Amino acid sequence: MTDRLILHEYAASGNCYKIRLTAALLGIPIERRQYDIMQGETRTPRFLAEVNANGRIPVLQIGDRFLPESNAACFYLAEGSALVPEEQYARADMLRWMFWEQYNHEPNVATLRFWHGWVGTENLSEAQRAVYPAKRAAGEAALALMDEQLGAQDYLVGGRLSLADVALYAYTHVAGEGGFDLATYPNVEAWLARVAATPGYISIDA
Amino acid sequence: MTDRLILHEYAASGNCYKIRLTAALLGIPIERRQYDIMQGETRTPRFLAEVNANGRIPVLQIGDRFLPESNAACFYLAEGSALVPEEQYARADMLRWMFWEQYNHEPNVATLRFWHGWVGTENLSEAQRAVYPAKRAAGEAALALMDEQLGAQDYLVGGRLSLADVALYAYTHVAGEGGFDLATYPNVEAWLARVAATPGYISIDA
Repeated sequence: MTDRLILHEYAASGNCYKIRLTAALLGIPIERRQYDIMQGETRTPRFLAEVNANGRIPVLQIGDRFLPESNAACFYLAEGSALVPEEQYARADMLRWMFWEQYNHEPNVATLRFWHGWVGTENLSEAQRAVYPAKRAAGEAALALMDEQLGAQDYLVGGRLSLADVALYAYTHVAGEGGFDLATYPNVEAWLARVAATPGYISIDA
Repeated sequence: MTDRLILHEYAASGNCYKIRLTAALLGIPIERRQYDIMQGETRTPRFLAEVNANGRIPVLQIGDRFLPESNAACFYLAEGSALVPEEQYARADMLRWMFWEQYNHEPNVATLRFWHGWVGTENLSEAQRAVYPAKRAAGEAALALMDEQLGAQDYLVGGRLSLADVALYAYTHVAGEGGFDLATYPNVEAWLARVAATPGYISIDA
């Protein structure tokens, strides 16, 4: 991997942290460029034209190519490493948890963290208030499903750390900031500690 | 691939169709088991215990293993085929569009199709009504982003058909059922015709 790697990011975003954590676990150096999402810096004409037409971070710049979507960037960095299982079914099962993360976990667990910690619950729009209870319930259901899986095995896929764990660690370990009580999910808490004890691990504020 | 393949599905779901289309394009035979999602058949204790604890279809059964998440199932079927680019960046870029599909496209384009065609707009809950305008706008933005990409190249990734096209074809080609006007997106319409002309293609009601 000889291309220069630049992460276009907002440091506190779990989606951005995933990519930094993947790189750290693999010993891959990446540069970092910060954008203040609260000031709309990912919606400027220049960002939309040069970095991501979808107006979102993270984007992993690989030489002169730009790769959006956090889990795709993790996959790019980790393919061929021990973070991606060699067996065909296990590799697809890893992607299963990563797709599940973006569909069932992030829109609930991460969104409530953002609403509580950045927007402020007193500033939510009418539409946000209307879906808040459903997002709370779906977030709890996502954490409960992880707790069930992690009661049966140490990691989400195949008994060893994979990108599925990295992807889900990112927003799960800060779920408390969104009003979720992780003490309710003891298997998740034990798994969080296992991930954090992995050689090469870095924290979200590193 | 010698394991018996059984798709647990609801035929009209685009997420299920994706998997059938992938299998058809690759000439892989799969069996089909139908569940009526409108009757809660994917939330029964037996389904939750034996097929998917997340209570959703599709699930691709591979021998005695169960793989949820449509795009993970497509990846399982297609890895090593011409539907998955050989080059590392292109492969990650394919996954980028597949993650984008589940995060930016499906929750808007597919959800409005379901609300219009299955629930009925007159039966929407208060919370659903509250987020309807945002989902409409996000769905239009997703189609506009595809139209921009497909104005520059014939397929979403690398100039040839990949799983990214299969994944996004599934709900895009029936977006009209959700009240989207595809005539607004001529590059998308031309791409839909290209996908449908691919050898091995099957329709959603096949």
